Amino acid sequence: MLSKFDSIFSIDCVIFGFEEGELKVLLIERNDEPFQNWWALPGYFVENDESIEDAAERILHSFTGLRDIYLEQFYTFGDVNRHPQGRVITVAYYAMIRLNGKADLHPTTPFVKTAVWHPVSEMPDLAFDHKLIFDKSLQKIRRKISYQPIAFELLPEKFTLTQLQNVYEAILNKKLDKRNFRKKMLNHGILKELDEKQQGVSYRAATFYKFDRRAYNKQFKKELSFSKE
Amino acid sequence: MLSKFDSIFSIDCVIFGFEEGELKVLLIERNDEPFQNWWALPGYFVENDESIEDAAERILHSFTGLRDIYLEQFYTFGDVNRHPQGRVITVAYYAMIRLNGKADLHPTTPFVKTAVWHPVSEMPDLAFDHKLIFDKSLQKIRRKISYQPIAFELLPEKFTLTQLQNVYEAILNKKLDKRNFRKKMLNHGILKELDEKQQGVSYRAATFYKFDRRAYNKQFKKELSFSKE
Repeated sequence: MLSKFDSIFSIDCVIFGFEEGELKVLLIERNDEPFQNWWALPGYFVENDESIEDAAERILHSFTGLRDIYLEQFYTFGDVNRHPQGRVITVAYYAMIRLNGKADLHPTTPFVKTAVWHPVSEMPDLAFDHKLIFDKSLQKIRRKISYQPIAFELLPEKFTLTQLQNVYEAILNKKLDKRNFRKKMLNHGILKELDEKQQGVSYRAATFYKFDRRAYNKQFKKELSFSKE
Repeated sequence: MLSKFDSIFSIDCVIFGFEEGELKVLLIERNDEPFQNWWALPGYFVENDESIEDAAERILHSFTGLRDIYLEQFYTFGDVNRHPQGRVITVAYYAMIRLNGKADLHPTTPFVKTAVWHPVSEMPDLAFDHKLIFDKSLQKIRRKISYQPIAFELLPEKFTLTQLQNVYEAILNKKLDKRNFRKKMLNHGILKELDEKQQGVSYRAATFYKFDRRAYNKQFKKELSFSKE
């Protein structure tokens, strides 16, 4: 093949989680030059004999220890000078996961010094163009939250309205008025109130809610479409 | 760089248009081996010194003559054996355009024998994995039509309800009940009836409508979100 077309493909993963009332993203500390000790998204080169989906799973697993995560491809970044070592085009994936028990990170590749869940509200500088990739993923879920109930993918099955508001605030990157948020959310009719309150708080224990997918589907799906006709 | 990572990048474009009451897609007839005389999507290799966005514009222009089209990246295809000449990963873009005056196609590259607007309802076999790419783009706009008014991007500014129904039927790939379609569409309150009827028809001339973006934004935007709070 002609060499003017030769390039290298890589994968980068933006994995969102919600922990201790905060939206977090999975970052690794690189162990190799030219970005030793830099924070970066988990990502590396695609090998010639694997599909990009297989590469994404393999790389995420070796960089973080995570497995069986539903990765959604969201954008491919191909600026000419985005990588200091040559032409590298990267396919970016994102995932939103519940952290119950999945928060433990065990990198197995020597490229990674450590892997952590890092608060989105205090992002450090990132290697390569990973800040751009991260920003684009956040834009993506910000748009998506307006027509899909993705906030619930991050929360435990039972959650309080404060936790739900925290997720919205973190994704939208702004403070929301508490009364207004509660009113609007409850008016949607997509939350099921549970007969259960927060434990271990001495003052006003918060009520737990569940997401009511059936009510959501009834009210929010197929507005303009005729898919069920 | 290590050769096990070397590969080639390409771009493929799925351009939708609506003409003569039909949803169409832009296809080219290849002029080069191994797919001489095959139909294919407009697409070719990305050069090392151009970004993928620049490559997409350049390739679409040289393969079809089209310029200044808003191309939206929608998926990157990276199966190991998708290209007969080696490892080629392709970034796919789509666009939906109004064909008024833009239907003329003038390929300038020798790789193209001819370029045509082909009815989506009678797709021929396509080279490479272009059928897969086309199907994925159709899936994408099928999902999108349920929450965004994209049908109107394909229609002339003034259109009849029959034309609108044709677009929906083509994208959803099924016949819709005429009365039900009209009732539902008019109930949305996002169509403005014009004081103008179809010309040159001797029997029941159809009324023209315009898409009312303001009414749409008011009713369909920000359902679950708090973006305007």
